[in-house]
Amino acid sequence: MNSSGKLRIEIIAVGSELLTPYYQDTNSLYLTRRINELGMNISLKTIASDNLDDLIYCFKQAQQRSDLILTIGGLGPTLDDKTNEAVSASLNRKLIFKKEILHQIKNLFRKRNISMPSVNKKQAYIIEGAEILNNKKGTAPGLWVEFDSKIFILLPGPPVELKTMFEDQVLPRLLNLRQGYQSRLVLKIVGLTESKTESLITDLYPEENGLEMTILAYPGQIEIHLTGFSISSLKKAENRTLKLSRLIRDRLKEHVFSASGEKLEEVLGKLLSRDHSTLATAESCTGGLLGHRITNVPGSSDYFLQGVQVYSNTAKIKLLGISEALVETHGAVSQEVAEKMAERIREKAQSSYGLAITGIAGPGGGTKEKPVGLVYTSLAWKNGVKTDKNLFSGNREIIKFRSSQKALDMLRRFLIKRD
Amino acid sequence: MNSSGKLRIEIIAVGSELLTPYYQDTNSLYLTRRINELGMNISLKTIASDNLDDLIYCFKQAQQRSDLILTIGGLGPTLDDKTNEAVSASLNRKLIFKKEILHQIKNLFRKRNISMPSVNKKQAYIIEGAEILNNKKGTAPGLWVEFDSKIFILLPGPPVELKTMFEDQVLPRLLNLRQGYQSRLVLKIVGLTESKTESLITDLYPEENGLEMTILAYPGQIEIHLTGFSISSLKKAENRTLKLSRLIRDRLKEHVFSASGEKLEEVLGKLLSRDHSTLATAESCTGGLLGHRITNVPGSSDYFLQGVQVYSNTAKIKLLGISEALVETHGAVSQEVAEKMAERIREKAQSSYGLAITGIAGPGGGTKEKPVGLVYTSLAWKNGVKTDKNLFSGNREIIKFRSSQKALDMLRRFLIKRD
Repeated sequence: MNSSGKLRIEIIAVGSELLTPYYQDTNSLYLTRRINELGMNISLKTIASDNLDDLIYCFKQAQQRSDLILTIGGLGPTLDDKTNEAVSASLNRKLIFKKEILHQIKNLFRKRNISMPSVNKKQAYIIEGAEILNNKKGTAPGLWVEFDSKIFILLPGPPVELKTMFEDQVLPRLLNLRQGYQSRLVLKIVGLTESKTESLITDLYPEENGLEMTILAYPGQIEIHLTGFSISSLKKAENRTLKLSRLIRDRLKEHVFSASGEKLEEVLGKLLSRDHSTLATAESCTGGLLGHRITNVPGSSDYFLQGVQVYSNTAKIKLLGISEALVETHGAVSQEVAEKMAERIREKAQSSYGLAITGIAGPGGGTKEKPVGLVYTSLAWKNGVKTDKNLFSGNREIIKFRSSQKALDMLRRFLIKRD
Repeated sequence: MNSSGKLRIEIIAVGSELLTPYYQDTNSLYLTRRINELGMNISLKTIASDNLDDLIYCFKQAQQRSDLILTIGGLGPTLDDKTNEAVSASLNRKLIFKKEILHQIKNLFRKRNISMPSVNKKQAYIIEGAEILNNKKGTAPGLWVEFDSKIFILLPGPPVELKTMFEDQVLPRLLNLRQGYQSRLVLKIVGLTESKTESLITDLYPEENGLEMTILAYPGQIEIHLTGFSISSLKKAENRTLKLSRLIRDRLKEHVFSASGEKLEEVLGKLLSRDHSTLATAESCTGGLLGHRITNVPGSSDYFLQGVQVYSNTAKIKLLGISEALVETHGAVSQEVAEKMAERIREKAQSSYGLAITGIAGPGGGTKEKPVGLVYTSLAWKNGVKTDKNLFSGNREIIKFRSSQKALDMLRRFLIKRD
């Protein structure tokens, strides 16, 4: 424990592949989130190779500095799986053969109609004095090893095995060590820059202990992560985040589109479903991304009827019946063409709404008058049409994403204003 | 050095935010790749918090176990940037004020027309005896600190600053420590499963030292990463990977679509450009993803004319003029409808080729006869049409991706067979 009485907790991910440029440990993000929820922080993360001597050295150092050590991976049946062996050596404890574990592993293979390969016998050896954590999703048992009022928790590497074992068997045991309660809330924002968001809520940065606010910026989207702590109850932690989230929502109003993790296209889908409305799209520079995002939502066939990707001018003229003269006079990237695209696809599809995007995604194709990033987004409804002129920054893919985000958001704002 | 005479190299990423569920160190993947190219491996990676005592302890342990220690981050001007201080304490060396560095930092701010905030003065203190690594992209200087024939290399956290500094100033110094040469080659494969790929080349797994083969599986795509080493020359390393890649390509033939990092849509774009051919698409379950991927390639307006997202049956009938009877008899997800979609969009767009996709992306909408994952992909050309029936696994987004991958690949195979 450190001077403040907090447990020192560390995570060690084992595997030489995690020390190459190809793979990255992501299990630790999940473990961190779940452990944070018990009011505990992670002090250190280590990624170690399969080398036995290195592993023993690494585990010995960990024993000195931490109270709780979670290891990930290296529990498999092959020669390069050495976590078990290394922890036993670092603790100076024997590996003991457990008949009942061998039995379980053999059963698992029998269910799959294969006989157990002899290498798997290795997984039936466990560290003396350890508690076994059953693996419902694979052959490698996990271990809970106590020593000198400290704990090693050995978890398998495959994410589904690790998560199942952690939820079922580690979390209940960790509750005894709980140092508090954490509540988390994420507000998602569209239509504001990071600096604008920050300036609107800068005086709301919590000063009290037990409440944290983090602003994360992504292309076309800002997230505000709120974390509340309480030593005594989850309710108190939740009240803290809820109170702050209400203050933030009062400031940011309709720019907040979600407080429950939903994507913009999901929020829009719910609004369309609620109204029994339908939608059609006409895309130029986004090339289909808008329709792709809309149809990523299960059940979108209830409201998304059709779209056109009118990439060439000919397509704009022939598929949507926009007059050649209009395209020639104003150019394909213009308010006039965007408007017509939205109106015509709505008429064609006989949908409640039409969304259209035309712009220059780059890297080529920009001019002084119409630079890369210039994008018109249009929304047509029964009695009207509205067009926004945008100048987006970023590379081709980011400009495409920002364009689709803006189009989705135009319709979302239209639908919530009608409430 | 370890027993085999290899330098022990480790990376320490500093920053409390890297110990939350929100952020992940990615700088180390880049550093690993570049260091591997010098014939050297990474033995350990650590992610440490901003806590000064923890950092000093961590750096002291690192000094004991490694020859070369690269640190990332914690060089900024704010209170929680403590890497400099911690390394100096761990080495028992003083921090010394350098007038010329303060001058450089002040100049940098002057160029941006702002006066230097007083906190930045801290960045002008460097560890006694260290060499300064200039930062061309920011204010924080890096450091090269030699001690007991070992080396600390302190790098800034923002990726663009880290990469520029590493390329310009660290790599040239590391060349003296070079332990060999590495060459890397990635073969990308479509149309084969991981196990099929593995079975076709399993006897080609290199047994010699100095050559490695790794197979990575992604939805709809397999990658084979080849790494060749040589102690004496890059040419020798390259020859090793090239020789092996030729053997693999002889086995996997047209399933290999790239050996130079290109995406499938880029390879297809080059083939279409070469032939001065054009393309139009008709998508149902992919909802625009196919067009989105095609138009992610800069210059795709040269060959991509238009697309339609015919999500509803009405759209299939009205937009593409497919007969209602055909849709009713065979269903929207059928060979007959897929074929007509490809033919009709080609006619409509007057393009060289038409690609069509219709299927069930799930999670709902499946039946016993037509389950989730059933997808028909069609290619139409001047004199014919070809349709494939696929049964894809995965969630909605993965089925959509696999479907688009298959459609792109049908046309790629058609174009290379004409060669």
